[in-house]
Amino acid sequence: MPETHVRRRAALRTSLRERDLDALLVVDLRNVRYLTGFTGSNAAVLLSAENDEKTVFCTDGRYLTQSSRQVPDLERLIDRPCAPALAKVTADRNLGRTGFESHRVTVDELDVLAEQAGKVELVRAAGLVEELRIVKDDAEIEALRMACAAADRALADLVAHGGLRPGRTEREVARELETRMLDYGAAGPSFESIVAAGANSAIPHHRPTDAELATGDLVKLDFGALVDGYHSDMTRTFVLGAPADWQRELYDLVAAAQAAGRAALRPGVPVADVDAAARGVVEAAGRGSEFLHGLGHGVGLEIHEAPSLARTGEGRLAAGMAVTVEPGVYLSGKGGVRIEDTLVVRDGDPELLTLTTKQLVVV
Amino acid sequence: MPETHVRRRAALRTSLRERDLDALLVVDLRNVRYLTGFTGSNAAVLLSAENDEKTVFCTDGRYLTQSSRQVPDLERLIDRPCAPALAKVTADRNLGRTGFESHRVTVDELDVLAEQAGKVELVRAAGLVEELRIVKDDAEIEALRMACAAADRALADLVAHGGLRPGRTEREVARELETRMLDYGAAGPSFESIVAAGANSAIPHHRPTDAELATGDLVKLDFGALVDGYHSDMTRTFVLGAPADWQRELYDLVAAAQAAGRAALRPGVPVADVDAAARGVVEAAGRGSEFLHGLGHGVGLEIHEAPSLARTGEGRLAAGMAVTVEPGVYLSGKGGVRIEDTLVVRDGDPELLTLTTKQLVVV
Repeated sequence: MPETHVRRRAALRTSLRERDLDALLVVDLRNVRYLTGFTGSNAAVLLSAENDEKTVFCTDGRYLTQSSRQVPDLERLIDRPCAPALAKVTADRNLGRTGFESHRVTVDELDVLAEQAGKVELVRAAGLVEELRIVKDDAEIEALRMACAAADRALADLVAHGGLRPGRTEREVARELETRMLDYGAAGPSFESIVAAGANSAIPHHRPTDAELATGDLVKLDFGALVDGYHSDMTRTFVLGAPADWQRELYDLVAAAQAAGRAALRPGVPVADVDAAARGVVEAAGRGSEFLHGLGHGVGLEIHEAPSLARTGEGRLAAGMAVTVEPGVYLSGKGGVRIEDTLVVRDGDPELLTLTTKQLVVV
Repeated sequence: MPETHVRRRAALRTSLRERDLDALLVVDLRNVRYLTGFTGSNAAVLLSAENDEKTVFCTDGRYLTQSSRQVPDLERLIDRPCAPALAKVTADRNLGRTGFESHRVTVDELDVLAEQAGKVELVRAAGLVEELRIVKDDAEIEALRMACAAADRALADLVAHGGLRPGRTEREVARELETRMLDYGAAGPSFESIVAAGANSAIPHHRPTDAELATGDLVKLDFGALVDGYHSDMTRTFVLGAPADWQRELYDLVAAAQAAGRAALRPGVPVADVDAAARGVVEAAGRGSEFLHGLGHGVGLEIHEAPSLARTGEGRLAAGMAVTVEPGVYLSGKGGVRIEDTLVVRDGDPELLTLTTKQLVVV
């Protein structure tokens, strides 16, 4: 999809011109992938504010074939390390103000870049590509859709085949989920899967252990699939056997908060208000202090990216943002419930990408 | 093993005193793990040049329980983000020259650190912990041994169960290897496994595809297991069916080069000489230009770390270094052979950690 990358580079140029930059040295690999489609493990781009003809892509000899296939439309430099090689290009071409990703370049690396760039002025330019990445284009949403579908299907198969049953360990469940996602096209899990049973479900970021699932447990699964570089993120909480009253009440509370959060997802809404919409439901039930984290986060080429749907989050939603909505209430030593979807903000109702039911499922 | 970490911190203090540093702000997570045993995803250490009593460990609230278990012996600060919080500690305690990891801290992060540190002088101090990490202690070698054993066992099972057979795809083989390593205690693969069949075996870093293994193929497997944070690394090349003469010749050549490289592993030997010992064998056969990479690399908490066993590598071997020896010869469009072990440099013969046979195995 070269035209997608052409469009993204054009959008970045607008941002460069607003900052009076002649070029931007992009070293973050996700940003390089976003701008070029290149998926290798070593690359950088010197994006000219003028046009693609003056833009240079750099990778090393291992990726000769792959880069000619994935990045056919840019001048290519084969060198290693890439960032200094492109800094030297700025000197050779006598460029003007050149931005660099000061949120990624280390103090030591900047020395090397400055030496190679000679008289060219290197200017801090943090987060320019990330700003563009907040609003997803159609190709990105399609990748997220596939990632979410792989997770949905894996979970459906796990449950259908009796994967959640007393006696299995958290670790076994995590591994089955991850294997099943591979069957549905995932390159891997999008982060370390969380499987938390019983009292462990009250720990927000519990890592799977050899603890066994038992009848009466809340079982919280927070996991996702990585497809084409994009991350899905979903949490569901089950009950093994007949739910106790407190479990059903807790579940209903979190489900109501999650629905309120989803309903608040509209273009123009301040992100802090989305958090407040869900948090208000939990607070009204007197459980505000047991909702231990923010409501959600952006998701895309990174599992956590802008915007942050938290009390302290800044800015407003826009159509095309992909975010999670994931309230949780955790009763220490007893159990916790979290329900999380990945959604795309749209004009009107948001588009739900994680389609697994949010009804209380008793297995 | 708190005494291991006490010993490592004491060794680092010697290095701080040599540089007239009062403290070192350690932000690299592998370095934090090395110095404290902490395995979480967010932490930093302010190591005092004086003693452990004045040393502060920082992590965030998610790791309250885990950090009290893993790091019981240091003052603990719960804050987020950790590095600025510890920079503020340097100001509060009015420390003198404080080193920071300039090879890890970004240009933007340094601004924040400097602001928090106030009048405290922040000094570049790159790679101090990495220097210690080059020579492994017993606990590290034991972890590497387990990681190598998981890979050995996984490969043995794969072959014994007919996992290498015509019609299977490279991807299927990679996945089976990775799953079997999990069965033997690996937390995951130590890097993206390479399975390369037929002409693909001539590509040094080929990623597994849906290409099917076929009779007559060279099949190159380069993979490893991650155990307790330590990475194993091994390559073996098989032939499917009776080997052709050129395959046997190529195999014998690489095996001889690999044996020469292993034999050169002695304390005091310049690392470039180890590369030369193996490379000389390949060059004498007129195939020097088809040995496309360095001979090997250090391995430990990172899959690639110092020392680099390459023509341009600097320094000498010392007892306790863990390195790979992995010559390869690649006949473009036809096939390639690489044979790789992970070994520990010892007084006398090196200790071989990857125990799978290096005889030509015909499957």
